[in-house]
Amino acid sequence: MKYKRSERLVFMTHHLTSNPNQLIPLTFFVDKFNQAKSSISEDIRIIKDVFESDGIGIVKTTAGAGGGVSFQPKISVSRAEEIIGRFMKMLKTKERLLPGGYLYMSDIMGYPNLMNDIGELIATMYGEEEIDAVVTIATKGISLANSVARKLNVPVAIIRKDNKVTEGSTVSVNYVSGSTRKIETMVLSKRTLEEGSRVLVVDDFLRAGGSITGVINLMEEFKARVVGVSVLVEAKQVENRRFNDYTSLLKVSDIDEFNQAFLVEEGNCMDYVWNDEKRFND
Amino acid sequence: MKYKRSERLVFMTHHLTSNPNQLIPLTFFVDKFNQAKSSISEDIRIIKDVFESDGIGIVKTTAGAGGGVSFQPKISVSRAEEIIGRFMKMLKTKERLLPGGYLYMSDIMGYPNLMNDIGELIATMYGEEEIDAVVTIATKGISLANSVARKLNVPVAIIRKDNKVTEGSTVSVNYVSGSTRKIETMVLSKRTLEEGSRVLVVDDFLRAGGSITGVINLMEEFKARVVGVSVLVEAKQVENRRFNDYTSLLKVSDIDEFNQAFLVEEGNCMDYVWNDEKRFND
Repeated sequence: MKYKRSERLVFMTHHLTSNPNQLIPLTFFVDKFNQAKSSISEDIRIIKDVFESDGIGIVKTTAGAGGGVSFQPKISVSRAEEIIGRFMKMLKTKERLLPGGYLYMSDIMGYPNLMNDIGELIATMYGEEEIDAVVTIATKGISLANSVARKLNVPVAIIRKDNKVTEGSTVSVNYVSGSTRKIETMVLSKRTLEEGSRVLVVDDFLRAGGSITGVINLMEEFKARVVGVSVLVEAKQVENRRFNDYTSLLKVSDIDEFNQAFLVEEGNCMDYVWNDEKRFND
Repeated sequence: MKYKRSERLVFMTHHLTSNPNQLIPLTFFVDKFNQAKSSISEDIRIIKDVFESDGIGIVKTTAGAGGGVSFQPKISVSRAEEIIGRFMKMLKTKERLLPGGYLYMSDIMGYPNLMNDIGELIATMYGEEEIDAVVTIATKGISLANSVARKLNVPVAIIRKDNKVTEGSTVSVNYVSGSTRKIETMVLSKRTLEEGSRVLVVDDFLRAGGSITGVINLMEEFKARVVGVSVLVEAKQVENRRFNDYTSLLKVSDIDEFNQAFLVEEGNCMDYVWNDEKRFND
């Protein structure tokens, strides 16, 4: 069967976007379509132009014997604003304040489309970093970690607060929960993360930062390097947070449990999308 | 800016596959490209043909004022075989048997690409069912649930074994763990699942079926209807499983902990892909 250019473009667009950050040898398309390399290169140029002008991502081609094409998700500023806006709107609906001033977010974490889009946003922010794995803490961070890792094409390592028989040998650290001041334990299966990995830590909520500090300590046990920390929501006006270098999508403050009222504003993430965008347009 | 057909196809292919099982009004593309509806319809026909002949999925168009186009992932038999083969190969590598005959699978659950592909496979199997939500049990089922739900475009509800303050009011049931015969509790936040939902239950491992039976009981409390149960791996030769209607990707048997040996074979899932395929080709 001979494919027309229009048909090749449909197949190739799907194949590239289904395999983000993965090098696809040009020969894969050459063989599949039984076409000259020059035609395939021209197809890729068309895809590249649309992806860049429509804020979908970057298409990179590398020459030579081991060469090929890869797609790196990189969303535009306007798309990032749209995603954050949608997330903010969701956070403002319903009565989300729970006893103790905790914010109910499990429903939001359960919307795969929003998580996918936020995954693209975070992958855009950290797209220039070399990352070997995404690390998160069970349970609520997992959906987010999956989306980010899928876009970065790296595995996820899930830290647990209990030690299950199905995890094999584990490494554990104790940490002080920033909110409750209780001492808790977190464990990570030895096999889930390679020693010396460069990791991106993601989580749903950042309050005093006790558990993220625990993660950073646990990463030291794995000789891993934390290249970034990214959270969906941070509580503003918290004193004595134990680390400062992180990104957040939203900030909440002035939590008034009695009146079910709180303020939401944009976090610092747009600074990073904007920086990327500038680099991208240079 | 005027888009050429080739450029429109790239954009539309990306837009449709990024929004599976979602109705996109034709006017969205008409406005975006400033093109006549007839040209857009012709674009869609090209995408539809490639998606069907290459086993990517089905493109449905609905006419009328509320009409539009939607993409339903539906992979081919050969693609399904390839995914199961890849999964099987992973399960056979490394020393996976843990004390007690448990199978270490956390690394596999942490590969987002494999989880994405398995999500497409399960979405293909249950694509004709009306499903409102995907339900799973924390922790290991979550990655799978996310992928499946993303493809079906429905929310995920995560059942927990502990009752966290961030979940709000919950409903809980007790169940007997089939393997250990211990009585355990599972809880689901009231807000995460709407009453009367039609749910697909997914999990990583099915042994005696105690926890899935617990899920089924918990679903009754939500007046929810379980339309399917799908697991990645089932242990064969288990007597007295409390329910019989489920699908599995792989079956393991003859677990020999001492010699780190076990048998793996294909589960029953291909029966469902094949049936779908037959229907699809009619």
